[in-house]
Amino acid sequence: MSLRIAHIGLGPIGCAIITQIAARGGMQSVCAIDLDPQKIGKTLGEIAASDAPSLQNVSVRGDMEAALREIRPDVAVLCTSSSLPRVWPQIETIARAGVPIVSTTEELAFPSGPNAHFTAQLDALARECGVGIVGTGVNPGFVMDTLPVLLSGACERVEKIRVERVQDAGARRLPFQLKIGAGLSVEEWQRKADEGSVRHVGLRESIAMIAHALGWNLERISDEISPQIAEEPVSSPHLSVAAGQVCGMKQDGVGYQNGEAVIELHMEAYLGAPQSYEMTRIAGSPALEMRIDGGVAGDIATAAVVINTLPKIVSAPAGFHTMLSLPLPSFYRGNAA
Amino acid sequence: MSLRIAHIGLGPIGCAIITQIAARGGMQSVCAIDLDPQKIGKTLGEIAASDAPSLQNVSVRGDMEAALREIRPDVAVLCTSSSLPRVWPQIETIARAGVPIVSTTEELAFPSGPNAHFTAQLDALARECGVGIVGTGVNPGFVMDTLPVLLSGACERVEKIRVERVQDAGARRLPFQLKIGAGLSVEEWQRKADEGSVRHVGLRESIAMIAHALGWNLERISDEISPQIAEEPVSSPHLSVAAGQVCGMKQDGVGYQNGEAVIELHMEAYLGAPQSYEMTRIAGSPALEMRIDGGVAGDIATAAVVINTLPKIVSAPAGFHTMLSLPLPSFYRGNAA
Repeated sequence: MSLRIAHIGLGPIGCAIITQIAARGGMQSVCAIDLDPQKIGKTLGEIAASDAPSLQNVSVRGDMEAALREIRPDVAVLCTSSSLPRVWPQIETIARAGVPIVSTTEELAFPSGPNAHFTAQLDALARECGVGIVGTGVNPGFVMDTLPVLLSGACERVEKIRVERVQDAGARRLPFQLKIGAGLSVEEWQRKADEGSVRHVGLRESIAMIAHALGWNLERISDEISPQIAEEPVSSPHLSVAAGQVCGMKQDGVGYQNGEAVIELHMEAYLGAPQSYEMTRIAGSPALEMRIDGGVAGDIATAAVVINTLPKIVSAPAGFHTMLSLPLPSFYRGNAA
Repeated sequence: MSLRIAHIGLGPIGCAIITQIAARGGMQSVCAIDLDPQKIGKTLGEIAASDAPSLQNVSVRGDMEAALREIRPDVAVLCTSSSLPRVWPQIETIARAGVPIVSTTEELAFPSGPNAHFTAQLDALARECGVGIVGTGVNPGFVMDTLPVLLSGACERVEKIRVERVQDAGARRLPFQLKIGAGLSVEEWQRKADEGSVRHVGLRESIAMIAHALGWNLERISDEISPQIAEEPVSSPHLSVAAGQVCGMKQDGVGYQNGEAVIELHMEAYLGAPQSYEMTRIAGSPALEMRIDGGVAGDIATAAVVINTLPKIVSAPAGFHTMLSLPLPSFYRGNAA
């Protein structure tokens, strides 16, 4: 029996998940919800610009609670916001309809800092409703937390973990290039960074997840962003950046224990980055350095991680989960008829 | 409260685990069992050649059942044999004493082929006794199965998985160098390979684990071994190999689906290998290639994987587990007082 999936939030990532499910097969998109009046009433085929037959008969609705109770999907994919406080009411509605949740909400991956109190709330809600809830994606959720944690499982001693994720942003979609501030002047970029609209959300969550897995008590997590300035003109299919303008960003998250930087997450995403890669280096015994040259493609992989997590959250005991508590991540083939 | 651990089987790996636990702290070795009359009555300090204070007061016993029922450890580490049929009676005794088990028995990592029937037997036994049972180590259990499976979790499509593990055997202990047949003539090596005493056990299990995780039905698994011949003289601190003699082995496990090789595990372990490394290449979308240059040190890492799995099997629901069903592997800090 193939999984019947509800889609809540039909932005770029929500749509990438829908088209990937249609292409992969063995699963069914049966319900779609968005608040945008421009989307309500359209088919998933129209919204996701796909002619996959399975998407032509599902129409977008705005009445989430009624739709979920009527259609009774096996699991919901929630892609509406990075902010846990903002998605909390949506999570409550979905869970109370008895539907397990996989969400791309970055702050849900491992609630920490001002969101730490949500962990107990989420777990109580999930148990009361008898469903599993988890936040995941490629980052946070995979390359900068789950993978480094797994590697620590081969160690007798871990002193420090450094993770690097460098992405040539030229190969990514326009919204991603805008999100990193490519094409802005340094002043514009700084203003957007200050107001929080240029920023990767998730380093704090990844650091908190790694620290929890290792049993480390961090006294402080820092998260700093800086612009990458183009030394020469550089362009992508979507936009052009003059020399002296911003072509992207660098961001560093650091977790401190006893005054020492024990977890360092370093990201670079800019047009013209020489090579995309993922790197995890564990200082300890054995010392390990893992590299994935070429990197893990962001949009495909986020959709893939979410979809591959669906059967795991459906089978998981009721409660709030993280990638630490679910079974080992793996590709999900679906159930072909 | 720190984990109280029983050690059953005090060969090189059993002892590596004991000394690592003593060095790491936050756990206690409270019980030790071996059948060798030469070992019974000695302290763990003597057996493991360690002056760690915690090992001087634990004496090796031969009466496994009585010792377990008397000492009531939280978990047992079982390191007696690669063969599942041979360890089955030991597993039964330990489980019936109510003690969860982590074992380095390679064939337990994912029972398959002639051992496939053990899966249901192990699960029934484990549930009846209310304990978790798992087989793991660095290989099988980590680098050639768990890690590739995790990476597949970022993919929307997996066509083929190739894993390579190349080890410069010169850096390993003497028993490992003997196990790969270093120093033998080609004829002697072939005779030992034919009788099964030169061979890595676990490729079949790793392939079956990967296939299960991906939902692939393999029609056949092959596992072939060949000698690596020294072109020039090569030596380690333990032994010397003349040109023309065997300096180690190569082994290839292949899983076939619809006539195609979809899982390829390639191992090389010989004196004079230019560089140790781990590599996993996934053909699919996104295509991924992960490398760990320098490799994952075998003996330290096998002990580390086993020890890091102890708290997970203690907390797991009763039943037979594999690395696929347990939560994400991670370093275990122990509970320092």
